[in-house]
Amino acid sequence: MTYCVAVAVDAGLVFASDSRTNAGIDQVSTYSKMHIFGVAGECQFVLLSAGNLATTQSVVNHLRRDIETDARVNLFKLAHLADAAEYLGQINQRQQSKHAEQVAQAGFNPEATFILGGQITSEPLAMYLVYPQGNYITTSAQTPFLQIGEGKYGKPILDRIIEPGTSLEVAARCCLVSMDSTMRSNVSVGPPIELLIYQKNWLRLDRYRLFAEDDGCLLDLRRAWDKKLREAFTDLPAVDCEMTAPPTVV
Amino acid sequence: MTYCVAVAVDAGLVFASDSRTNAGIDQVSTYSKMHIFGVAGECQFVLLSAGNLATTQSVVNHLRRDIETDARVNLFKLAHLADAAEYLGQINQRQQSKHAEQVAQAGFNPEATFILGGQITSEPLAMYLVYPQGNYITTSAQTPFLQIGEGKYGKPILDRIIEPGTSLEVAARCCLVSMDSTMRSNVSVGPPIELLIYQKNWLRLDRYRLFAEDDGCLLDLRRAWDKKLREAFTDLPAVDCEMTAPPTVV
Repeated sequence: MTYCVAVAVDAGLVFASDSRTNAGIDQVSTYSKMHIFGVAGECQFVLLSAGNLATTQSVVNHLRRDIETDARVNLFKLAHLADAAEYLGQINQRQQSKHAEQVAQAGFNPEATFILGGQITSEPLAMYLVYPQGNYITTSAQTPFLQIGEGKYGKPILDRIIEPGTSLEVAARCCLVSMDSTMRSNVSVGPPIELLIYQKNWLRLDRYRLFAEDDGCLLDLRRAWDKKLREAFTDLPAVDCEMTAPPTVV
Repeated sequence: MTYCVAVAVDAGLVFASDSRTNAGIDQVSTYSKMHIFGVAGECQFVLLSAGNLATTQSVVNHLRRDIETDARVNLFKLAHLADAAEYLGQINQRQQSKHAEQVAQAGFNPEATFILGGQITSEPLAMYLVYPQGNYITTSAQTPFLQIGEGKYGKPILDRIIEPGTSLEVAARCCLVSMDSTMRSNVSVGPPIELLIYQKNWLRLDRYRLFAEDDGCLLDLRRAWDKKLREAFTDLPAVDCEMTAPPTVV
């Protein structure tokens, strides 16, 4: 499986992704799920991927080739990030449709899901979740983060912490904590972890970090969070309420 | 959906369940998912249910009727809790098989999953998760809790806190926190919440509580946990690591 999370706050965007892929429990590999495209000062795109690895690789290759060949439509020629989400959705659908006949086979699913975030000069920053069907949704003040893959374990902390006014540093820390909770509870999500912070209107990507499994920063954060969380739980007041016999006993 | 969690520690068992059921987003009802069977001083069973409501109701009815009619095999005549899990699995399968022909219909799934825990005189206490297929697993020192339904949101706190030596009071508080996190992140899990604590060798059920949505105890715990969790997060050290440009930018 996969876990990717991306946060859109007033100050900018934060992206985090794990690197574990598996095709069956005995075929586990490490692949980056964070793909970066940009022209300094003009546009920056960060793409996070989940789902079928062959599909995500072919989609990413297609995006790159369209840029390299200066295709009529490519990421660097689009005026709006929503257009980029539309374009990505079409490529995603096209790659999946190659395998439409095999979909009925048990265990085969060519679907892939993406988060695409970034900024194009003079446009506000934006972020989209692009579904396997090619349609897409964006963030809002009420829903300032998007997740793909194994999102449930790491959602509660995001629900409590992330707001539009959250700083980029706090949002990044929250993404790492969310990732850590997911890795602890689900072995199909694993290191290295990639983290990228994009500051609004900066139009450059220079705040990136890859955390290997034994990265001191990540281990410190993991230990501190584990300790703080246990303390928070221990400090809770006892549930001091009357308990009785249940209403119906056969 | 549903969220039920049950914990087996050295001191006894703790059960917690939500009460929201839905057949489609516009057909939401409230049903207890905690079913109790017992003879004081002889045997006590607590059953938590998830899945198709018609199946869980018919299974529970079947268990009750077998007791009332003093059937050759019923919960009160079994010598081992594993036998009770086997018997429950068979009834579950039988109820589902009535609808085998309709399974192919889109959106119809008669499957139900149960947690059965309790104690029979002179037997150690035990707990089983009974799958729709009728097979079942139990807890261990490494896995002292079982979940059915929407278990992912509330798993991280259980993973960190629950150990065989955890007290019943702490285990109960952890189940409520796990339930609260789930309700906060998933609207398909909702109050009232039922909580039951069973103390080893007690062979009576007298520590039960139903928490309505506005229950003061539950609100206090929710507010305290929200505050402590935010404080724990705020107190985390800043992720003080060097960040650079990402390795590959097209």
